[in-house]
This record gives sequence, C-alpha cells and structure tokens, in this order.
Amino acid sequence: MDKAKGFMRRVLLIKFKAETTPDHVERFIKDYSNLVNLIESLKTWHMGKDVSIDNLHEGFTHVFELTFEDAEGAAAYVVHPAHLEFHERIAPLLEKTAMIDYKPTSFHT
Amino acid sequence: MDKAKGFMRRVLLIKFKAETTPDHVERFIKDYSNLVNLIESLKTWHMGKDVSIDNLHEGFTHVFELTFEDAEGAAAYVVHPAHLEFHERIAPLLEKTAMIDYKPTSFHT
Repeated sequence: MDKAKGFMRRVLLIKFKAETTPDHVERFIKDYSNLVNLIESLKTWHMGKDVSIDNLHEGFTHVFELTFEDAEGAAAYVVHPAHLEFHERIAPLLEKTAMIDYKPTSFHT
Repeated sequence: MDKAKGFMRRVLLIKFKAETTPDHVERFIKDYSNLVNLIESLKTWHMGKDVSIDNLHEGFTHVFELTFEDAEGAAAYVVHPAHLEFHERIAPLLEKTAMIDYKPTSFHT
C-alpha cells in the first residue's frame, strides 16, 4: 500500500465524433483543464493522447485523469455547477466514452 | 505543464469473463502487480475497482495504471519476457479491454 491509498481517481477515455474540429478539441481540453481552477475538490487534472502501438485502444483517442482528496471530494465535483455546465456543453462532441472512479492501490512486496 | 511531462503512462480497463472465479481475479492482480519487481523499466503499478455511480463504465470493472520513465521504458516492458508470459496466461480470462499509452500533461493556468 502507498500514500495514494485515500485518494479517489477518475479516469475518462473518450473518442470525439468525426465531425469535431481541431478547434473544438482544443477548446474542450482547455475548458476541461480549467475546472481545476473552478472546483476546489478537484486536486489534479492530467490528459494524454493515445500513442500506443498495440491497437488495443478500442477507438479511444484521449484519456483524462482527475484526482480528488476523497470520495466526498469526487461527489462534490460531480454536482458542481461548473462541472455540470461543462458536461452539458461538451457531451454532444463525444462519440464514445468510458469512465471509472477508483481508489488507486498498489501492492509492493 | 508539470513534472510528469516526460513520463509515459499506460491505462488498462478490463472486464473479466463471467466464469472467472474470485481466486483467478486475485491471482491475476497479484501476478500483474508483481511485474513491478521483475521489470526494471516499470516504475509504478496501481489498480482500482470501479466505484462510480454514473454508470458510464461501459462494463469495465477494473483499471490498472502503469508508469514508465519514458517511451523507451514502455517499449522495453511490452517485449519483456515476464510481461509476455503474464499476458499469455491472463488473456483468456478477459472479456473486454481498452488500453491507452500516453504522456500525462496538465495545463495549470
């Protein structure tokens, strides 16, 4: 077990609709990352573009990882007006999503 | 941008086949986590079970995050005999997977 034990993390995989322009993608990422400035319980925000060569991405092109201090912080984020407004606005851009919330655990032996 | 910039991360979402026993799941997680002791370029290994309430998990139940120092480290992991042996043995347990490799980036403003 390590220090990350109490934290809650959300991982979101997405695929944009084909008609989504690069400008829309850029705006999406900027607005998403900005939630860290608007929502107190959102502690870290990271994203990445898929660079895997195994072709096991199932069509997903981007991953987002958000970290919260605890489950209460994650719950506060979900109902926060800034998150709801963002979600409402960007949902139409997305063709496919997969999202998991979890407490990261390791097993160092 | 932050200090995580140079790192490579792999996120794997999985769903086990219905017939996979709890013992098999436990063994899978133990063996997977043990790769951190066998493969030098694998720097951190974390896992978590989905606890989300939004029902956007697309059937995935577990997430695994692996971190490598750089792209070379990630490439070395992929072809490492311990990884290949593990992969061969556990692939039959899995009904569904999605995997993305990326360089985590943040945009603090």
